[in-house]
Amino acid sequence: MDCLDQIKWDDKGLVPVIAQERDSGDVVMFAWMNREALAQTIARGEAVYWSRSRNRLWHKGEESGHVQKVHELRLDCDNDVLLLRITQQGHEPGIACHTGRHSCFYQRLDEGRWMAVEPVLKDPATMYSK
Amino acid sequence: MDCLDQIKWDDKGLVPVIAQERDSGDVVMFAWMNREALAQTIARGEAVYWSRSRNRLWHKGEESGHVQKVHELRLDCDNDVLLLRITQQGHEPGIACHTGRHSCFYQRLDEGRWMAVEPVLKDPATMYSK
Repeated sequence: MDCLDQIKWDDKGLVPVIAQERDSGDVVMFAWMNREALAQTIARGEAVYWSRSRNRLWHKGEESGHVQKVHELRLDCDNDVLLLRITQQGHEPGIACHTGRHSCFYQRLDEGRWMAVEPVLKDPATMYSK
Repeated sequence: MDCLDQIKWDDKGLVPVIAQERDSGDVVMFAWMNREALAQTIARGEAVYWSRSRNRLWHKGEESGHVQKVHELRLDCDNDVLLLRITQQGHEPGIACHTGRHSCFYQRLDEGRWMAVEPVLKDPATMYSK
């Protein structure tokens, strides 16, 4: 696909990806995609990332059921970062984080310390039982 | 600072940073920080990034005047990605992109093509004349 050729993949063949909830505007996750992950994301309409730790494609929600429906894809001015506008499915409110929280960005800097400021919505031990 | 030690810097001593406008919720930019950039960001209350292309610290807005006032810093679950909640200063509406647009994420995937869907708010030729 032409739209994949336009992207400047890094020296590992990856680009950073920001996932933002469409309705709330919340930034819920950051991950990476390679060419195949982006192609699958476009084809499925659901986020498929490249897991650097597991070294394989990762259909977000494949175990937890917390699939990300993709409404819109955006590319930045340098053609090397993607922004997804998504709906986080499988739980209300959405759970994007493997800790069971709404967003991965739940630690806020308060007076020089990173403090967890968002509640755990679901016990992670029950999230990956599928 | 302890809060810097908690961060998992990558093999180049960097972390990815997402800049989100506090009031609009718009994701306007993506960049990188090293330890010194983050320390300066915290001390100044304004975004200071590490420019990989120029290989130096980059106080965002130093030439354009489009400084990012930082209201809040967030860290993700893996301690390796930062999210800044900012106000984009120097123009109304804010201009974060070097192309003179509000956001760097102005290209939207439409039927297999990346289309520029946000207007240029200011001629870039006049942005860097300071």
